[in-house]
Amino acid sequence: MASQGEAATRAEADRLKLELESLKEKGGVQDTYIGSYLLERLVQLGVKYIFGVPGDFNLGFLDLVEDHPHLEWVGNCNELNAAYAADGYARVKERSLGVVITTFGVGELSAMNGIAGAFSEMVPVLHIVGVPSTAQQSAKPMLHHTLGDGRYDAYEKAAQQFTIAQADLFDVQTAASEIDRVITSCIVKARPAYLTLPTDIAYKRISSDRLKTPLSSLLPVNESAAEAHVIEEIERLVKAADDSVVVLVDACAIRHDVRQEVDELIKKTGFPVFAAPMGKTAVSEQYERYGGIYVGTISRPAVREKIESAKLILSIGALKSDFNTGNFTYSIPTAQTIELHSDHTKIQFAVYHDIGMKQLLPKLSDKLKSLQPRSSKIEVTPFKAIEPKDSSDVISHTWLWPRVSKFLRPKDVVVAETGTSSFGVLDVPFPDTAVFVSQILWGSIGWTVGSTLGAALAAKELQMNRTILFIGDGSIQLTVQELSAMLRSGLTPIIFLLNNSGYTIERFLHGKTRKYNDIANWKWTQLLDVLGGGEVPSRSYTVHNRAEMDKLLDDEEFAKAGQMQLVEIMMDKFDAPPALMAQAELSGKTNAYVANDGKMDNLATAS
Amino acid sequence: MASQGEAATRAEADRLKLELESLKEKGGVQDTYIGSYLLERLVQLGVKYIFGVPGDFNLGFLDLVEDHPHLEWVGNCNELNAAYAADGYARVKERSLGVVITTFGVGELSAMNGIAGAFSEMVPVLHIVGVPSTAQQSAKPMLHHTLGDGRYDAYEKAAQQFTIAQADLFDVQTAASEIDRVITSCIVKARPAYLTLPTDIAYKRISSDRLKTPLSSLLPVNESAAEAHVIEEIERLVKAADDSVVVLVDACAIRHDVRQEVDELIKKTGFPVFAAPMGKTAVSEQYERYGGIYVGTISRPAVREKIESAKLILSIGALKSDFNTGNFTYSIPTAQTIELHSDHTKIQFAVYHDIGMKQLLPKLSDKLKSLQPRSSKIEVTPFKAIEPKDSSDVISHTWLWPRVSKFLRPKDVVVAETGTSSFGVLDVPFPDTAVFVSQILWGSIGWTVGSTLGAALAAKELQMNRTILFIGDGSIQLTVQELSAMLRSGLTPIIFLLNNSGYTIERFLHGKTRKYNDIANWKWTQLLDVLGGGEVPSRSYTVHNRAEMDKLLDDEEFAKAGQMQLVEIMMDKFDAPPALMAQAELSGKTNAYVANDGKMDNLATAS
Repeated sequence: MASQGEAATRAEADRLKLELESLKEKGGVQDTYIGSYLLERLVQLGVKYIFGVPGDFNLGFLDLVEDHPHLEWVGNCNELNAAYAADGYARVKERSLGVVITTFGVGELSAMNGIAGAFSEMVPVLHIVGVPSTAQQSAKPMLHHTLGDGRYDAYEKAAQQFTIAQADLFDVQTAASEIDRVITSCIVKARPAYLTLPTDIAYKRISSDRLKTPLSSLLPVNESAAEAHVIEEIERLVKAADDSVVVLVDACAIRHDVRQEVDELIKKTGFPVFAAPMGKTAVSEQYERYGGIYVGTISRPAVREKIESAKLILSIGALKSDFNTGNFTYSIPTAQTIELHSDHTKIQFAVYHDIGMKQLLPKLSDKLKSLQPRSSKIEVTPFKAIEPKDSSDVISHTWLWPRVSKFLRPKDVVVAETGTSSFGVLDVPFPDTAVFVSQILWGSIGWTVGSTLGAALAAKELQMNRTILFIGDGSIQLTVQELSAMLRSGLTPIIFLLNNSGYTIERFLHGKTRKYNDIANWKWTQLLDVLGGGEVPSRSYTVHNRAEMDKLLDDEEFAKAGQMQLVEIMMDKFDAPPALMAQAELSGKTNAYVANDGKMDNLATAS
Repeated sequence: MASQGEAATRAEADRLKLELESLKEKGGVQDTYIGSYLLERLVQLGVKYIFGVPGDFNLGFLDLVEDHPHLEWVGNCNELNAAYAADGYARVKERSLGVVITTFGVGELSAMNGIAGAFSEMVPVLHIVGVPSTAQQSAKPMLHHTLGDGRYDAYEKAAQQFTIAQADLFDVQTAASEIDRVITSCIVKARPAYLTLPTDIAYKRISSDRLKTPLSSLLPVNESAAEAHVIEEIERLVKAADDSVVVLVDACAIRHDVRQEVDELIKKTGFPVFAAPMGKTAVSEQYERYGGIYVGTISRPAVREKIESAKLILSIGALKSDFNTGNFTYSIPTAQTIELHSDHTKIQFAVYHDIGMKQLLPKLSDKLKSLQPRSSKIEVTPFKAIEPKDSSDVISHTWLWPRVSKFLRPKDVVVAETGTSSFGVLDVPFPDTAVFVSQILWGSIGWTVGSTLGAALAAKELQMNRTILFIGDGSIQLTVQELSAMLRSGLTPIIFLLNNSGYTIERFLHGKTRKYNDIANWKWTQLLDVLGGGEVPSRSYTVHNRAEMDKLLDDEEFAKAGQMQLVEIMMDKFDAPPALMAQAELSGKTNAYVANDGKMDNLATAS
């Protein structure tokens, strides 16, 4: 408890120290390059792998990356995949950040969807863009990679929409403090930031003195009187709720690094705990008082009943997007909700700014632990996989996901693509310490391929277990080439490819039998061999029925994931997890795709 | 001649008529949907293929596309490739436009680099984005594909940087005129435009009356007194130049549709003609008075001498980017230059606004044709391939490109990727009516794969000959999945894949032996089979030496391109066309990648 406050105080002092140094005369020996200073900051924050694509305006800087003893360059096939990889890396390697390097214009714009996704889902990704030299940027010639009209600032204007901080390193004097400012915003706010590095600036000399003072992601210390008031208010409401309190954890509990504090709270208080889809694995799914996933009306009945009948909900790190709430079908009155967030607290209708959960949670746990004997009597239906009762041999979604549940192991990293996979896997109880990675708010299909590359590298660093990807044949086509980077990096993820002949999630939204939801069929089981050049060992399998799938999953050689493996699972194109079907029906209604009369078709085709 | 002015006058009258209709009370039967109105405008402008990726906010609109009797939906593997395809389509299908449909946020941002490239290179591409319904956009819930902070306008703000016109179709009353405005900007200015289509708006009924008045890409009529003055001035300078006049054609001669007018000018006057790289094939490379490509100091000596010694240069549609001018090494004094552009004319130092070349050129041809007997005496060294003299069997660049020259046929569409291919192919004289497609200013690697898909579809429509792509193994990895769309669409391009083990163009710029310029080696000759699912016929070959390559190119079965074919050409990773080496040396100097001392390396690694 005290340690949280102490750490925050230390971080604040460091920030002030750095601010002061920025104002003072520059002294010290100019013993490093600006490019090297930037890399040292990243290394200090635990970055090991850097993603990106070389381009003529970042090549010099890449020399510094390649030569750095503690950094490894991961060359991606394209920039979007690189941004996705940096995102996946940051998600698994909590308390660090992801880094992607691209080149001016062409490269950075290709990465934009990946950066925007990290913004939306609150993932700290630093986007470093190699740009023309300061001389060229002043003269503004019609260089390649420009728009041809002298607008050298157009890309940054676009980037401003999707990043929390930006800096152009034009001035040697302020470069170090600008680097520090941008990285600090990135890690404190858990959002992407944007940094342009001109070719000449990368190699300008500066002093490395500032590097002695570390950067921190901790927020300022909560104001103590306000915090005490908040704790009292919460205690009062909890007591008034009379044993009917549940905890609901969500995305920001992971993004703002309070897993441990939440764990302490639920253990000390005994409150039943549930997770929103984006908060899956924020608390252990094997914890005996964990009840599963709450997604509004799409939830399992027992979960829905427990949450919606609770007198008080302690919501931690909520992010109420449509797919995270069963299309906004939460039935939780504000009067019965306490929301803890990274930088504020909301008690019923009152907002308390700058009272952040990182420091608040330990104090709350202490204050509320006396309730444990009573609250631990509230019954919680344990979260178990629901086995299907049919005796078919078809690999249906109702069969697949409970089966997957038995396959998972502690410390596995499980990545699930938006679509049938992300909806299906929600219903799979994960082993303790297994990690769930998905992009439920942003929902950019194809994201998981790049993301799996980053996640697998982080998993390797953290000595996690296997990295396992679930993806459909439609989604994987967007970013498929990045399988090559996994092979090249010596990674051994297991890719479960759900071959259901197209964009099944969209068929449920609209256009069930439309041609635009069809895709080309590929020879999936030859793909790894082709992308590994036949030189990197890999194995691929097709499973057509339950028996084949069972046999494969039970095979120890397969399960130990000693080489990269791809499993093509043959599924029906009109099958989907029940949660997806329910969500699609809710979304479809809001979208109102068709005409009211539903009759008229291209009356004006005679042109 | 008169017809140009008449057409422009007709176009102007039509524009005024439409403007008037926008102001009048809306009458007429509401006999079409807004979505259908939009599609009819595209069909009127010659669009047949529409590119894109389905997403939940565009599915309803895609029903209209799929059901339209004159349109074909080309489902792409991802949105960047789709934008590239629309760009390639527009380039080959001159006087029409390319169209790409994506979905809100995730889809449109993925396409952004492709759209920015079309902006930079002046290609008319309409980007239609399916967005949430008007009701949702007013309420601004935290929908998937949003940034989670209610900023529904963020994507359009980014798009504004890279499009010439934007419209949000929110209002049924103005939808038709907004559609017309945006499409007109797109085709008149030959730049991409951006249109958002809410799910509900696509199916709102409006009158189709406006469709009777066509849209036009013609600019307003040149003001006659100013135009007469400009012609006199040009005539005076041409006469003063005393037989020493050359014509230099560039990109905008193609983009702004004056090929025919230029052809008439050079035939009537007899002036020698040259092309900048981006103007290659704007005039026939078989024309007896065509001298080849001018790229500043990188040019062939005969070309350089002829242009730089000319007393007057008639420059048509110039676009002076670095890679289009040999890193700005043009030696053409302004005092000796007349520049014709789409919307202005520049005579020496004087700019004449709104005097566009489309109408000016025919008048100029008439005025200057009397000079033909004299100017046709100026000698022009014909543009021929230069055969290498070495007897090696290695496929070097000096051997490859002259060999390619013999393989090309009339009406071939040749697409060349930025890098060794685009530099190499410049030196290849094209047969008459063959078309050159490349992205020399924007230079986004991987662009040609998507672009070839679009180009090949346009070529099919226009009954051109083969579509042939030259690309390196580094570039193709960025966008490789789009080969699948070619197979699926029944196209039969020939892909020459220069396997030179990585990013060779970058090795010449910087980091010759750096790992970051290496890539994974793939089994290239199995790729088409995998991406065609083994169901679509295709053939792949590897050629290791000149004899093998000769044999293949001479094979009539191969040359007739009856199925999709990929030829992996094994080349040395340190070989490049001479023009690329020269360009790289010039660029490398400006970039100043390394430190002045060239000594210091990561002094501050101790962290």
